Amino acid sequence: MLIVQKYGGTSVGTIERIQSVARKVAACQAEGNQVVVVVSAMSGVTNNLTAMAFELQKEPSPREMDMLLSTGEQTTIALLSMALEEIGCPARSYTGGQVRILTDSAFTKARIQEIDGDKIRADLDKGKVVVVAGFQGVDDEGNITTLGRGGSDTTAVALAAALKADECQIYTDVDGVYTTDPRVVENARRLDKITFEEMLEMASLGAKVLQIRSVEFAGKYNVPLRVLSSFEDGPGTLIGSEDESMMEMPLISGIAFTRDEAKLSVVGVPDVPGMAYSVFGPISDANIEVDVIVQNIGADQTNDITFTVQKKDAEKAARILKETAERMGAKGIEVDDKVAKVSLVGVGMRSHAGIASKMFQALSKASINIQLITTSEIKISVVIEEKHLESAVRALHSAFDLENPTI
Amino acid sequence: MLIVQKYGGTSVGTIERIQSVARKVAACQAEGNQVVVVVSAMSGVTNNLTAMAFELQKEPSPREMDMLLSTGEQTTIALLSMALEEIGCPARSYTGGQVRILTDSAFTKARIQEIDGDKIRADLDKGKVVVVAGFQGVDDEGNITTLGRGGSDTTAVALAAALKADECQIYTDVDGVYTTDPRVVENARRLDKITFEEMLEMASLGAKVLQIRSVEFAGKYNVPLRVLSSFEDGPGTLIGSEDESMMEMPLISGIAFTRDEAKLSVVGVPDVPGMAYSVFGPISDANIEVDVIVQNIGADQTNDITFTVQKKDAEKAARILKETAERMGAKGIEVDDKVAKVSLVGVGMRSHAGIASKMFQALSKASINIQLITTSEIKISVVIEEKHLESAVRALHSAFDLENPTI
Repeated sequence: MLIVQKYGGTSVGTIERIQSVARKVAACQAEGNQVVVVVSAMSGVTNNLTAMAFELQKEPSPREMDMLLSTGEQTTIALLSMALEEIGCPARSYTGGQVRILTDSAFTKARIQEIDGDKIRADLDKGKVVVVAGFQGVDDEGNITTLGRGGSDTTAVALAAALKADECQIYTDVDGVYTTDPRVVENARRLDKITFEEMLEMASLGAKVLQIRSVEFAGKYNVPLRVLSSFEDGPGTLIGSEDESMMEMPLISGIAFTRDEAKLSVVGVPDVPGMAYSVFGPISDANIEVDVIVQNIGADQTNDITFTVQKKDAEKAARILKETAERMGAKGIEVDDKVAKVSLVGVGMRSHAGIASKMFQALSKASINIQLITTSEIKISVVIEEKHLESAVRALHSAFDLENPTI
Repeated sequence: MLIVQKYGGTSVGTIERIQSVARKVAACQAEGNQVVVVVSAMSGVTNNLTAMAFELQKEPSPREMDMLLSTGEQTTIALLSMALEEIGCPARSYTGGQVRILTDSAFTKARIQEIDGDKIRADLDKGKVVVVAGFQGVDDEGNITTLGRGGSDTTAVALAAALKADECQIYTDVDGVYTTDPRVVENARRLDKITFEEMLEMASLGAKVLQIRSVEFAGKYNVPLRVLSSFEDGPGTLIGSEDESMMEMPLISGIAFTRDEAKLSVVGVPDVPGMAYSVFGPISDANIEVDVIVQNIGADQTNDITFTVQKKDAEKAARILKETAERMGAKGIEVDDKVAKVSLVGVGMRSHAGIASKMFQALSKASINIQLITTSEIKISVVIEEKHLESAVRALHSAFDLENPTI
């Protein structure tokens, strides 16, 4: 098998941990695999570099910022290669530029356009482990670029896609993807498998294991992703396509949630065309991301429009919404930042009716009032009072029997 | 003028010092010059990286060592560019590879073969300061290489040569080249000018201001070098060719010395051809560098051969010499590691007789016994008892009136 492994900053945070990663990598190669390793900067390094930059410039030049930050990963690839060589595992390190991870020139948030896998394949064929710096690339003028937050995951997935790897393993500080946050539900269960789509819903809804962008990328190129722990052995969670092997998937894979929501409503909006645009245009112009949107028409032919934004944007959004409401002749606005969102995620719900009503029943039994509901093909989200969040998650976890494997 | 400036690790050792360097660079540009800046890693950084490498590998892979160490300079170029931009001086940083400082593949001690100055010239013509990472290059396969000790000086001189710069300014923690070490002779004087050849003799004899290699390089390509202080203003010392402007050069430029010598003799060696090779072949095979060599033929037609090595090699050299002496039927060997070497350096001595005898007279007046003498076109060296070193240097400094400018 050709395997791409990615180790984050915590996993390579000390010399001892780098040595431990080297042993894992060597063991994987000893099993007969070809191994490409992608690493992040040692934990703390990126923050130190960033702090120095901000001492020098209020808004550091993005090109120079990338020049600066890319040294973090470069340091790790050299050290890991040394650790591998020391235990008799031939290794060769490459910066993003050296294996031509070609990106656009959007410094600090560049997008990968192309990867030249030839050098890597040649080294693998010589029996070497190839160690590649995550998070970085090079534009077509040879400038060093970085991919922004979670960029090392993206590098790993992109390399796996370019090399047609059999699996892309993302080593983190958790041992897989859980049915929900184990800090909230004690008997939350590690999932063996989950689909790309489900993972996207889980990630974007607050179960932070993988960066959304790398999951999208993996889904697009159909690269099987596995989330594993750097610190303990175990199979982790495989994130893959919804193929025959996924037929045995349970109805519901997990419960995602976020406290980071504020709810805004504009009530009594006259029902005229372009109304939604009038409300959301100014919000969007202010770079505020809107999450859930619900619109109801009332008996008096006026509309109530309710939506949620991140808590940090609530005040700004409220100011904008107030002006809009006055201009439109609406009755008024309401703001509530004591809300949370809980989402049931599962590809199985596509083909099964009754999931929603079972969800509402479980919440009702727990005396939790639902403020907003939205649904997609593979998820049902409700917005509730923030203080009920944990009991809602527990009630749903138990109602859908997520603590027990379904097969 | 097109000026290449080089700042070493101490000069960029803190954020404040980087800001101070930025002000110096901006001032130089504001005077109407085009400026290319070469920087080293912040002081301490290279040592930290090296320490990590040695924790991982007893003999770190040279290729990975270069991958690792080159991050030090890359960090500095980004930070200095930010500092320059912050004070309104447009700047652009480049790694060695990005301006194609092409070297051979001798990792950790690579030699520069070629530099592509096009990118730099284009940026200079746009009014930018160009900041280049010292100490590093790239081989023709795209591997990162480093130039070894003093590599940043070499980078600066090579860039100055490639760009046909008017001057290459090396900023250090001293304000120029002195007639001798001011710690030994209080009224040692800063030299305004010195020739490449003199500087080579001064440097190799222990007056450590510039790396020998960069002086050789500058001499070869006739790049005027100026040594200046990063911390105080002043004209520094100009190192140049021996042209008409050098006609006013004094007889003697300075006095170099080193305590790091041990003297070995093999006495009563039968006078047969190949004798010198028999003595020095085994020494050289053991990678021991020999400095002064003197041979005398005695009345009994046997030879005494005396030479000096670095103190650290004395014991090993003595062991080898003992074997050689026995094999050759010599009378015996003598070892003395309590010696020092003092050298008078000056291009003026080429055309003036009597310098040597004036030197011997001065030492004699100071009751200092001379053990060995060697001469070259522009220097006279004597080996003396180590305990007399400082008084010898003082006596010579005063005898040749070096505390006073000659013109």
